[in-house]
Amino acid sequence: MPQVPRQDKAPTSADVARAAGVSRTTVSFVLNDVPGSGISDATREKVLAAVRELGYAPNAGARALRAGTGNLVVYAMPRWPLGPAINSVIERTRAALADRGLVLLVHGDRSLTGTDAALAWAELRPRAVIADTDRCTAESVDLLRRHGVRTVVLVGEEDVPFAPTVRLAQRKVGRVAARHLLDRGHRRIAAIVPTGDLAEPGELRYAGLAAEVATTGLAVARHDLGFDHDAALALARAWAADPDGRPRALFAYNDEFAALMLRALRDAGLSVPGDIAVLGVDDTPLCELVQPRLSSVALHTSDFAEAHVRVLLELLDRGPHEPWPELPENEPRVVVRDSA
Amino acid sequence: MPQVPRQDKAPTSADVARAAGVSRTTVSFVLNDVPGSGISDATREKVLAAVRELGYAPNAGARALRAGTGNLVVYAMPRWPLGPAINSVIERTRAALADRGLVLLVHGDRSLTGTDAALAWAELRPRAVIADTDRCTAESVDLLRRHGVRTVVLVGEEDVPFAPTVRLAQRKVGRVAARHLLDRGHRRIAAIVPTGDLAEPGELRYAGLAAEVATTGLAVARHDLGFDHDAALALARAWAADPDGRPRALFAYNDEFAALMLRALRDAGLSVPGDIAVLGVDDTPLCELVQPRLSSVALHTSDFAEAHVRVLLELLDRGPHEPWPELPENEPRVVVRDSA
Repeated sequence: MPQVPRQDKAPTSADVARAAGVSRTTVSFVLNDVPGSGISDATREKVLAAVRELGYAPNAGARALRAGTGNLVVYAMPRWPLGPAINSVIERTRAALADRGLVLLVHGDRSLTGTDAALAWAELRPRAVIADTDRCTAESVDLLRRHGVRTVVLVGEEDVPFAPTVRLAQRKVGRVAARHLLDRGHRRIAAIVPTGDLAEPGELRYAGLAAEVATTGLAVARHDLGFDHDAALALARAWAADPDGRPRALFAYNDEFAALMLRALRDAGLSVPGDIAVLGVDDTPLCELVQPRLSSVALHTSDFAEAHVRVLLELLDRGPHEPWPELPENEPRVVVRDSA
Repeated sequence: MPQVPRQDKAPTSADVARAAGVSRTTVSFVLNDVPGSGISDATREKVLAAVRELGYAPNAGARALRAGTGNLVVYAMPRWPLGPAINSVIERTRAALADRGLVLLVHGDRSLTGTDAALAWAELRPRAVIADTDRCTAESVDLLRRHGVRTVVLVGEEDVPFAPTVRLAQRKVGRVAARHLLDRGHRRIAAIVPTGDLAEPGELRYAGLAAEVATTGLAVARHDLGFDHDAALALARAWAADPDGRPRALFAYNDEFAALMLRALRDAGLSVPGDIAVLGVDDTPLCELVQPRLSSVALHTSDFAEAHVRVLLELLDRGPHEPWPELPENEPRVVVRDSA
């Protein structure tokens, strides 16, 4: 373990130069890995030893400015809570960047959009920024580029013209679910729309479902629900008491809400899929664990995360003004099990 | 939306001063919110308007150095994958810091420890750092302090003497599980130890379980298992074929593995808890959704996350050399449902 002398002030690059017996320019060449600077391996080792010895950390902004680029990639935390899908994207992105010596920083300020958001991200002088389309404008992307951000990748429901967009469309999830239920002959379709933190993606999935169902002249019965056993049971009991009025198929927003409804429907004496079919979303491990096994719309999270990472890496290799590569788009499909 | 002039270079504070018709010192006073600098509201507004107009973002390191402190809090991503427990800690920490105008940055480099890790975090010139005990040494904490990090909060299995530690003990989870199963009269106890990414916490939970069971002179049958239906089913079938040899209680690492085993045991014709009791960990929503309802060791995630945040905020208000407040420790307890 390197000996770190106790002192009150942070060491500077001048301290490193003194300790290594070299010039500050040499220190800078070594730390910024400047090509063609003619530094011998022995000198490089001496400088790095002094850096370790003294505990010298150039600040990221200063280092990025000197070297023309930093090793940080800012991932602006999406506005809805962390869950299995976003965890998977973060984990894969993190690992792929680490293979290139880049560090993922998940930026926790969810309140900012537009140029305010861009200024907060630009402060870190990152090499790349990944963010949702609804937090960016043409101006904010331009601002990032002027602060040395080489690559901006956006994620969103729809393409935007000012930056490469990886489409993760929630409406499409609802449309695919509707098509599955309609194709199986269901005409009385209901939907759970979550309240609270998940309201925003909930509305989008519902909108896709309702639009697709509407193409057949039918309507969807909408039920806004928190993740609450009593509320779920009340809904299931109302359906049990009204055999003629109850839906024959339920789109349950995601697998957790679907499992909640499976439990409530069983407790209310209704059978799945006999009395009512239930369809979840996300194709999580939960689907195999509940009774009956849950049919679910797969967002292709792992494919999507891989495509996301592939695009990011491709874009990192291009200049900011080069055309961008073909971009992935999620293609949800139904994994059919026993519940719908 | 502010007009951002297209230009190739990032604007400087000199550009802001020129645009606002004030000195660079005035710009610096406004941006760093220097108390007692006698800046009028009108001047402040003019400077802020120019900042917006030009799209000026001082880099975080430079700003932190000038102001003596930054608004960033680095949370070093733990080494095991993001899951419901860590998501909850991140979400709450993020929200509490945002209330104070601080921004959580989740740092994605899992490979570094000791002074290397400290150097990577120090580059961001954060105001506070939260990290696991096994990635920090006395030297690395000292190094962070010398780079202006006011607050270091560690999280770990055991206290360390060189920084305040929030204890999140996995061994204790295993001990509490063992005590519950022993108290219910079980003498033949088995444990699932996950392979792969979760091996590390898996070993700790298993070690606690085995140590507690050993106090009664008994041993635990250990089964290493990936999250795999076929492997789970093979294990359950082996138990079904050997009524005398099979365990009467199973500690299943977490709720997902417990649900996996519930499904496998049912498919193998064994009843829970009649033939074998099953205990999970985490007290997730899954517990109420599987059949039978799952008993589970609650880590008190939400209490714990709250305590974690409370300590962090208290420490932010103290100088780095003041004594630290009393620190929370997780107190797992069993939430008894139908499975054990």
